[in-house]
Parts: sequence; C-alpha cells; structure tokens
Amino acid sequence: MAKFHPSLPGRVTIREVGPRDGLQSEPPLAVRDRARLIEALSATGVPKIEAVSFVSAKAVPAMADATAVWDLVEKVVGVAYSALVPNRRGAEEAVRVGGFSSLQAFIAASDGYNQKNVGRAVEESIEDLEAVMSVGRSVDVPVEATISAAFGDPFEGDVPPKRVVELAERLVDFGAAGISLGDTTGMATPTRVWEVVGLMEERLADVPLNLHFHDTRGTAMANVLAALQAGVTEFDASVGGLGGSPFAPGAGGNVATEDLAHMLADMGIETGVDLERVLEAARRVESLIGHPVPSRLSRSGPRWNRADGP
Amino acid sequence: MAKFHPSLPGRVTIREVGPRDGLQSEPPLAVRDRARLIEALSATGVPKIEAVSFVSAKAVPAMADATAVWDLVEKVVGVAYSALVPNRRGAEEAVRVGGFSSLQAFIAASDGYNQKNVGRAVEESIEDLEAVMSVGRSVDVPVEATISAAFGDPFEGDVPPKRVVELAERLVDFGAAGISLGDTTGMATPTRVWEVVGLMEERLADVPLNLHFHDTRGTAMANVLAALQAGVTEFDASVGGLGGSPFAPGAGGNVATEDLAHMLADMGIETGVDLERVLEAARRVESLIGHPVPSRLSRSGPRWNRADGP
Repeated sequence: MAKFHPSLPGRVTIREVGPRDGLQSEPPLAVRDRARLIEALSATGVPKIEAVSFVSAKAVPAMADATAVWDLVEKVVGVAYSALVPNRRGAEEAVRVGGFSSLQAFIAASDGYNQKNVGRAVEESIEDLEAVMSVGRSVDVPVEATISAAFGDPFEGDVPPKRVVELAERLVDFGAAGISLGDTTGMATPTRVWEVVGLMEERLADVPLNLHFHDTRGTAMANVLAALQAGVTEFDASVGGLGGSPFAPGAGGNVATEDLAHMLADMGIETGVDLERVLEAARRVESLIGHPVPSRLSRSGPRWNRADGP
Repeated sequence: MAKFHPSLPGRVTIREVGPRDGLQSEPPLAVRDRARLIEALSATGVPKIEAVSFVSAKAVPAMADATAVWDLVEKVVGVAYSALVPNRRGAEEAVRVGGFSSLQAFIAASDGYNQKNVGRAVEESIEDLEAVMSVGRSVDVPVEATISAAFGDPFEGDVPPKRVVELAERLVDFGAAGISLGDTTGMATPTRVWEVVGLMEERLADVPLNLHFHDTRGTAMANVLAALQAGVTEFDASVGGLGGSPFAPGAGGNVATEDLAHMLADMGIETGVDLERVLEAARRVESLIGHPVPSRLSRSGPRWNRADGP
C-alpha cells in the first residue's frame, strides 16, 4: 500500500494549544486551575505547549492574568512552552516574564477575519508582527507566525493559496522562525491542504511548517492525513478538542489531542504522547469547564480497550 | 499535487443508512415519522437508501414494523432502496413486501462481535447468509453482504485483513452481489483501510465494494480519504451522523451524510446530493429524536456560507 502514502512521516510533533486556544472561548478559569492544567499537559509527553496568551484581557477575558498563570506553572524540562502575543506590548510582557522557548505572533491571510480578530487590515497588522519579531530578536527568542484563516475566511470566503504563501514569505523575511497555517473556522479540505502545503514546499521548503485545524466541518482529521502525505510533521491540537476563536462565528474546536495521537499511534507514527495522561487531562478540563469536551476518544477510549465478552 | 491522490474518483455513491443504522439505537419513532424521513431523504439526491430492517423487533425495538413503514413510503423512481435482513425469515418477509432493489445480509468477521450481534458463531451465521442469498436468487433480487467489525472487534481486538477478505470471498462464492466492510465500532484508521482495501482489490477486484465507517474515535473522515485514494467509490453515511449498533459498546455514529457530501463537494467529487436538503432532513431527525445530532455541518453550515461582515 506504499503507493498511497509516499511520505508518511515516522514521527509527528503535536503542539498542545488547549491552555490557549482551547480555553479562550470558555468562561474564565481560576489562575491556579489554568496553571495546574498546563502542568497536567506537561506530563503527557507533548514536546510543545502554547501555554498563555498576552492579548487584551478585555477582548479575551479567559486569557487574562497570563503572567500570574505562567508564574505558578512548574515548568518541565524538555517541554517547549510558547506564548501568543498580538503586538509589541504583548511581546515585551512575555519577554519580561521570561521562560518561553518561542513567541507566537499572528495575522490573518485576509482583511475580513483580521479586522474581526484585531480590528486592523492585514497590512496594518504586519507592522505589529515586525515589532514582535524585533522584540524577540533583541532577547534571542524565536518568533513563529500564525497565518489565520489560511484555508478560507468566514467573512470573505476562499483565500487564494498564493496570497497565503506570499504573506508567509514576507513574514519569513521579517524573521519568522516558522509558519503555522491556521484553519481558524474549519474551511480546509484535503485538496486545499495539498494545494497550500504544496506551494509552501515550493517556495519555503526550509521553513518549519505547523498546521492548525479546527473540526468545524468534520474535516480536521482528513486534513491531517492529507498534510502527513504532503510531508507536514507538526500539528496543533487541543486537549479534549476544545477551542475556537471568540471572533470566528461558528468556530468548532481544534482537532483533539487524544483523537490525533490515537490515530497516529495506530498508523505507526510516533508522537511521544501518553494517551492515558491526555485522557486524564481531558477529564480534568471537563470538570473545570463544567461541560463535556467534544473529543471522540474521551467518550470511546482507545481502540485497544476491550469490551466485556459477548 | 497529483502525487498525493493518484486515484481520487470523480464521483462517489453515498448510501444513506439513517433510517436503519441511524435510528436503530434511538427510542422507537412512529411508523409515519419513519416513512416521512425516508421520503425526505429520497429528495436529497442520494442514489441509495437503506430504508428498513427485518430484524427481530424484540432485539431492536426501533426497527419494528418494517412492513408498515415501507408500505407508507412514497417511493421515488431512481432511488435504490434496500432492506437489512438477518436470515431466511427476514429475507422472505422483505421479498413478500417487495420493492427493494437489493437485500443487505450481514455477518461479522470475528466470533466476538457476531455472537453479541446475532448470538451465533461466524460459521453458523454463514448458513443464514446462504439462505438469504437463495431467497434473493429465487426472485432475482441481488443480495449484498456486510462484514461487520471488519477493522477490529470490540471484544476480540484486531481482525486480520486476510480473514476479512477470505470471508468476503466465501460470500461472493455464495452469490453476494457486493461487499460492504463495516467499521462497526470505529476501530479503523487510514493504514488499516489501505491494507484491507488493498487486499480486496487483489482478490476481489471486480466485486462492488462499499465502506461503512463509524466516527467513534474521530477517524471516519480520514478513513474515507484513505479509501478514496485506494479507489473506493461507495460509502454508507447517516443523516445527522446518527447511528451505532445497540450491540456494540461505545459505538459512535456513522459518518454524517452532510459532513461527507460537503467535504467531497469541496474536493470536486460529485455525489448528486443536495446539501441543503440533507441539512433539512437532519433538522427533521433532531426534532423527531428530541436531541441534537452529532454531525458538524448541522451546527456550522457549509463553508460557502458567509458570516456577517467584520
């Protein structure tokens, strides 16, 4: 069957974004609970965690108190923690607090979503990203850039792959250490993934690429498969499948860490993730937010669990 | 990007199984409501519908009154309706009622699930399938055979692909007009799909193949993509993503008709399905069963819907 997966990787990096994207649309949790959740996720074996966000507490109340949360977290050596930063001020705060392996800047591929998300046109936002990168450079902390709505914009519709990749090129020119393409509202499908990733490979082959899928329309795991076949080896995922931008109408959750790690494990692709610990963390999240998480595995358990005999 | 989809088909057949697999674990609906649902689905453009099941009403109360339901249905020319039949008696009843384009027999690939489902070992069930096929032959109605738990058995675990395909060969020898491989409890992943479908292609290339995925562990749509790449062109799906065997612990719903048709449409693969009508049918199902259906699209709407401007 090798003809169907010419380039399935042997190993995939999962970046856990539950403490950030996962929680940002939920009612705010206590600082202590957010810190304990990051610690629980640090014990799952994921190599990267997006831990906090230095966005405006007024705009995203659930992300308030980033510094307090981060101060409380018992950091685990070997886990690379990142912070989301919207602009120079956020970057400076993150750098002042310290301890992040990288900063994550963000911008949309189209004005529609960018306006809704940060109240500015894409061209204006680029200045913010330049500023973030200069802050990162000054303290030698790499800055990665997320391009949101990279597979479609809920306000504007389709986004030409060429525009996405040209924006990525500009961000790399400004010093982005890596690019994450965000399917913020679940508008990606496998053929679109092949198209955009193919163009990224052509133009930015040596730049680390992360994909960030939301399962708004049920395509997230198929998109992951498509991306694996196109050579992508890093994906964002959120414990329990929580997530969704408060500024994206009808946004569904991120691809669930446990669903993704389980599928990859069965396909012989290493992630280093201890599934039982992720499921434990998902249960913790459920009790914190007070409603069920959307992941499938949190209901079904892994395929190797046996039911009681017939 | 052609290298990643060497054989994506231009057209896919969706067989709607909502009235059967979708409803069988729900509290029984009124005969009239079940008939109206089949009619609503007949207007969606799906070419095939599994309409009723002649299993024991005691075993599966939601499937009682198959004849009464079927009698009430206003059939649509051009839609191929099938009935699920467990044994000779069921087949004879279906044939007596008449109007079905085919009968669907079923057997599990492993004793564990077969015992739970029909209380018999696989070898004993084969006699039932032979009897069903002889009934079909006597009135010239084709009988297709579903192999349940074809990608794993919740009681026994992994099922060797070779065993699945050997069983399929025997069923074809007995006269099965087509084979459906059922991932009854969502244990399939893309590499398993490639393996089993590859072996089917090797050994039974000229036998029509249908795949039936449940999204129990979040892999259903990725499995569809894998199967498309392996040349499969027919899939079962259930309106709203309802479904799950009452005899399969923790079974999740079928892949949702609207989620599947939507992804395929965006990939340029024709299904003939009118998505708005499927979404309408999903809303009807929700109001009938009194709880939300699990499909994503019934919450989000299609990707071409625009949100109000920023």
